Amino acid sequence: MEPATPPPAPAATSLGTGVASYYGRRFHGRRTANGERFNMNEMTAAHRTLPFGSRVRVTNTSNGQSVIVRINDRGPFIRGREIDVSRAAAEEIGMIRRGHSNVELELLDS
Amino acid sequence: MEPATPPPAPAATSLGTGVASYYGRRFHGRRTANGERFNMNEMTAAHRTLPFGSRVRVTNTSNGQSVIVRINDRGPFIRGREIDVSRAAAEEIGMIRRGHSNVELELLDS
Repeated sequence: MEPATPPPAPAATSLGTGVASYYGRRFHGRRTANGERFNMNEMTAAHRTLPFGSRVRVTNTSNGQSVIVRINDRGPFIRGREIDVSRAAAEEIGMIRRGHSNVELELLDS
Repeated sequence: MEPATPPPAPAATSLGTGVASYYGRRFHGRRTANGERFNMNEMTAAHRTLPFGSRVRVTNTSNGQSVIVRINDRGPFIRGREIDVSRAAAEEIGMIRRGHSNVELELLDS
Protein backbone atom coordinates (compact mmCIF):
# COMPACT_ATOMS: atom_id res chain seq x y z
CA MET A 1 0.00 0.00 0.00
CA GLU A 2 1.26 3.46 -0.79
CA PRO A 3 2.42 5.19 2.44
CA ALA A 4 -0.20 7.85 3.07
CA THR A 5 1.57 11.13 2.35
CA PRO A 6 0.65 13.63 5.09
CA PRO A 7 -1.33 16.69 3.86
CA PRO A 8 1.02 19.68 3.18
CA ALA A 9 1.45 21.95 6.23
CA PRO A 10 -0.95 24.91 5.89
CA ALA A 11 0.62 28.18 4.69
CA ALA A 12 0.97 30.59 7.63
CA THR A 13 0.94 34.40 7.61
CA SER A 14 2.61 35.86 10.70
CA LEU A 15 0.42 38.33 12.59
CA GLY A 16 3.10 39.15 15.17
CA THR A 17 2.97 38.65 18.93
CA GLY A 18 0.68 39.90 21.67
CA VAL A 19 -0.94 38.96 24.95
CA ALA A 20 -3.71 36.35 25.06
CA SER A 21 -6.35 36.01 27.75
CA TYR A 22 -9.07 33.37 27.89
CA TYR A 23 -12.80 33.15 28.63
CA GLY A 24 -14.89 30.24 29.78
CA ARG A 25 -17.71 29.31 32.16
CA ARG A 26 -19.13 32.82 32.54
CA PHE A 27 -19.72 33.09 28.75
CA HIS A 28 -20.54 29.44 28.07
CA GLY A 29 -23.76 29.31 25.97
CA ARG A 30 -23.89 33.05 25.30
CA ARG A 31 -24.22 34.41 21.75
CA THR A 32 -20.87 35.19 19.99
CA ALA A 33 -20.39 38.14 17.62
CA ASN A 34 -20.98 35.94 14.56
CA GLY A 35 -24.21 34.53 15.96
CA GLU A 36 -22.97 31.20 17.30
CA ARG A 37 -23.26 29.94 20.88
CA PHE A 38 -19.91 30.28 22.70
CA ASN A 39 -18.71 26.82 23.77
CA MET A 40 -15.77 26.93 26.19
CA ASN A 41 -14.85 23.37 25.17
CA GLU A 42 -14.34 24.21 21.49
CA MET A 43 -11.12 25.58 19.96
CA THR A 44 -12.39 29.09 19.21
CA ALA A 45 -11.26 32.63 19.96
CA ALA A 46 -12.25 36.29 19.85
CA HIS A 47 -10.21 38.83 17.89
CA ARG A 48 -11.01 42.48 17.20
CA THR A 49 -10.53 42.49 13.43
CA LEU A 50 -9.75 39.09 11.86
CA PRO A 51 -12.44 37.71 9.52
CA PHE A 52 -14.85 35.27 11.21
CA GLY A 53 -13.86 31.71 10.34
CA SER A 54 -10.15 32.57 10.22
CA ARG A 55 -7.98 29.69 11.48
CA VAL A 56 -5.22 31.05 13.72
CA ARG A 57 -2.31 29.16 15.27
CA VAL A 58 -1.69 30.55 18.76
CA THR A 59 1.75 29.67 20.18
CA ASN A 60 2.55 30.30 23.85
CA THR A 61 6.02 31.79 23.58
CA SER A 62 6.93 30.79 27.14
CA ASN A 63 6.53 27.02 26.53
CA GLY A 64 6.24 26.63 22.77
CA GLN A 65 2.88 24.90 23.02
CA SER A 66 0.43 25.83 20.27
CA VAL A 67 -3.22 25.37 19.36
CA ILE A 68 -5.26 26.16 16.25
CA VAL A 69 -8.42 28.17 16.93
CA ARG A 70 -11.26 29.40 14.75
CA ILE A 71 -12.26 33.09 15.13
CA ASN A 72 -16.00 33.31 15.89
CA ASP A 73 -16.18 36.30 18.23
CA ARG A 74 -15.05 39.91 18.63
CA GLY A 75 -12.80 41.11 21.46
CA PRO A 76 -10.89 41.41 23.74
CA PHE A 77 -11.65 45.05 24.37
CA ILE A 78 -8.96 45.49 27.01
CA ARG A 79 -5.96 47.53 25.88
CA GLY A 80 -2.83 45.46 25.46
CA ARG A 81 -4.75 42.22 24.84
CA GLU A 82 -4.59 40.80 21.30
CA ILE A 83 -6.76 37.67 21.44
CA ASP A 84 -9.18 35.98 23.84
CA VAL A 85 -9.14 32.17 23.49
CA SER A 86 -11.67 29.65 24.76
CA ARG A 87 -10.92 27.79 28.02
CA ALA A 88 -10.22 24.55 26.12
CA ALA A 89 -7.68 26.32 23.87
CA ALA A 90 -6.06 27.93 26.93
CA GLU A 91 -5.66 24.48 28.50
CA GLU A 92 -3.90 23.22 25.33
CA ILE A 93 -1.19 25.86 25.65
CA GLY A 94 -0.82 25.84 29.44
CA MET A 95 -2.37 29.25 30.10
CA ILE A 96 -5.01 28.50 32.73
CA ARG A 97 -3.02 29.09 35.94
CA ARG A 98 -1.61 32.47 34.92
CA GLY A 99 -4.76 33.53 33.08
CA HIS A 100 -2.85 35.23 30.27
CA SER A 101 0.35 34.69 28.27
CA ASN A 102 2.53 36.10 25.50
CA VAL A 103 1.61 34.44 22.23
CA GLU A 104 2.58 34.43 18.60
CA LEU A 105 -0.33 34.53 16.11
CA GLU A 106 -0.28 33.04 12.60
CA LEU A 107 -3.17 33.08 10.13
CA LEU A 108 -3.43 29.66 8.45
CA ASP A 109 -4.74 29.21 4.94
CA SER A 110 -6.47 25.90 5.66
CA MET B 1 -37.06 58.72 4.34
CA GLU B 2 -34.42 57.61 6.81
CA PRO B 3 -30.96 58.75 5.61
CA ALA B 4 -29.23 55.54 4.47
CA THR B 5 -26.55 54.91 7.08
CA PRO B 6 -23.33 53.83 5.30
CA PRO B 7 -22.20 50.25 6.09
CA PRO B 8 -19.61 50.22 8.92
CA ALA B 9 -15.99 50.37 7.68
CA PRO B 10 -14.59 46.81 7.51
CA ALA B 11 -12.34 45.81 10.42
CA ALA B 12 -8.71 45.74 9.28
CA THR B 13 -5.83 43.61 10.58
CA SER B 14 -2.44 45.13 9.76
CA LEU B 15 -0.09 42.74 7.94
CA GLY B 16 2.81 45.21 7.87
CA THR B 17 4.56 46.67 4.85
CA GLY B 18 6.43 45.19 1.91
CA VAL B 19 7.15 45.60 -1.78
CA ALA B 20 4.42 44.97 -4.36
CA SER B 21 4.95 44.08 -7.99
CA TYR B 22 2.21 43.50 -10.58
CA TYR B 23 1.39 41.05 -13.36
CA GLY B 24 -0.77 41.45 -16.44
CA ARG B 25 -0.91 40.63 -20.13
CA ARG B 26 1.57 37.75 -20.04
CA PHE B 27 -0.58 35.85 -17.50
CA HIS B 28 -4.01 37.00 -18.71
CA GLY B 29 -6.24 33.92 -19.08
CA ARG B 30 -3.84 31.52 -17.37
CA ARG B 31 -4.96 29.30 -14.46
CA THR B 32 -4.42 30.81 -10.96
CA ALA B 33 -3.41 28.75 -7.92
CA ASN B 34 -7.03 28.45 -6.75
CA GLY B 35 -8.21 27.26 -10.16
CA GLU B 36 -9.63 30.50 -11.54
CA ARG B 37 -8.59 32.19 -14.80
CA PHE B 38 -6.30 35.17 -14.09
CA ASN B 39 -7.97 38.36 -15.35
CA MET B 40 -5.62 41.37 -15.41
CA ASN B 41 -8.65 43.68 -15.33
CA GLU B 42 -9.99 42.36 -12.02
CA MET B 43 -8.88 43.53 -8.56
CA THR B 44 -7.03 40.37 -7.55
CA ALA B 45 -3.57 39.52 -6.23
CA ALA B 46 -1.15 36.71 -5.49
CA HIS B 47 0.25 36.18 -1.97
CA ARG B 48 2.40 33.33 -0.69
CA THR B 49 0.36 32.40 2.39
CA LEU B 50 -2.91 34.35 2.85
CA PRO B 51 -6.09 32.25 2.54
CA PHE B 52 -7.67 32.35 -0.93
CA GLY B 53 -10.60 34.78 -0.93
CA SER B 54 -8.94 37.08 1.60
CA ARG B 55 -9.75 40.75 0.94
CA VAL B 56 -6.62 42.87 1.36
CA ARG B 57 -6.31 46.65 1.24
CA VAL B 58 -3.05 47.56 -0.50
CA THR B 59 -1.90 51.13 0.15
CA ASN B 60 0.93 52.65 -1.90
CA THR B 61 2.93 54.36 0.85
CA SER B 62 4.50 56.84 -1.61
CA ASN B 63 1.17 58.41 -2.69
CA GLY B 64 -1.40 57.13 -0.19
CA GLN B 65 -3.56 55.60 -2.93
CA SER B 66 -5.16 52.29 -2.00
CA VAL B 67 -7.09 49.46 -3.60
CA ILE B 68 -8.88 46.40 -2.21
CA VAL B 69 -7.89 43.12 -3.87
CA ARG B 70 -9.04 39.53 -3.48
CA ILE B 71 -6.30 36.86 -3.08
CA ASN B 72 -6.80 34.15 -5.74
CA ASP B 73 -3.22 33.17 -6.55
CA ARG B 74 0.09 32.17 -4.96
CA GLY B 75 3.30 34.18 -5.34
CA PRO B 76 5.40 36.26 -5.81
CA PHE B 77 8.32 33.88 -5.49
CA ILE B 78 10.97 36.59 -5.73
CA ARG B 79 12.75 37.37 -2.45
CA GLY B 80 11.83 40.76 -1.05
CA ARG B 81 8.44 40.87 -2.80
CA GLU B 82 5.37 40.55 -0.57
CA ILE B 83 2.43 40.69 -3.00
CA ASP B 84 1.83 40.60 -6.76
CA VAL B 85 -1.26 42.60 -7.76
CA SER B 86 -3.18 42.51 -11.05
CA ARG B 87 -2.48 45.19 -13.64
CA ALA B 88 -5.85 46.89 -12.95
CA ALA B 89 -5.07 47.07 -9.19
CA ALA B 90 -1.59 48.45 -9.97
CA GLU B 91 -3.20 51.21 -12.06
CA GLU B 92 -5.48 52.15 -9.13
CA ILE B 93 -2.49 52.88 -6.89
CA GLY B 94 -0.20 54.45 -9.50
CA MET B 95 2.32 51.61 -9.72
CA ILE B 96 2.51 50.93 -13.46
CA ARG B 97 5.38 53.21 -14.47
CA ARG B 98 7.79 52.07 -11.74
CA GLY B 99 6.63 48.45 -11.84
CA HIS B 100 6.83 48.01 -8.10
CA SER B 101 6.20 50.06 -4.93
CA ASN B 102 6.31 49.99 -1.15
CA VAL B 103 2.87 49.11 0.17
CA GLU B 104 1.06 48.60 3.43
CA LEU B 105 -1.17 45.49 3.60
CA GLU B 106 -4.32 45.15 5.72
CA LEU B 107 -6.55 42.08 5.89
CA LEU B 108 -10.21 43.20 5.80
CA ASP B 109 -12.96 41.23 7.50
CA SER B 110 -15.59 41.97 4.84
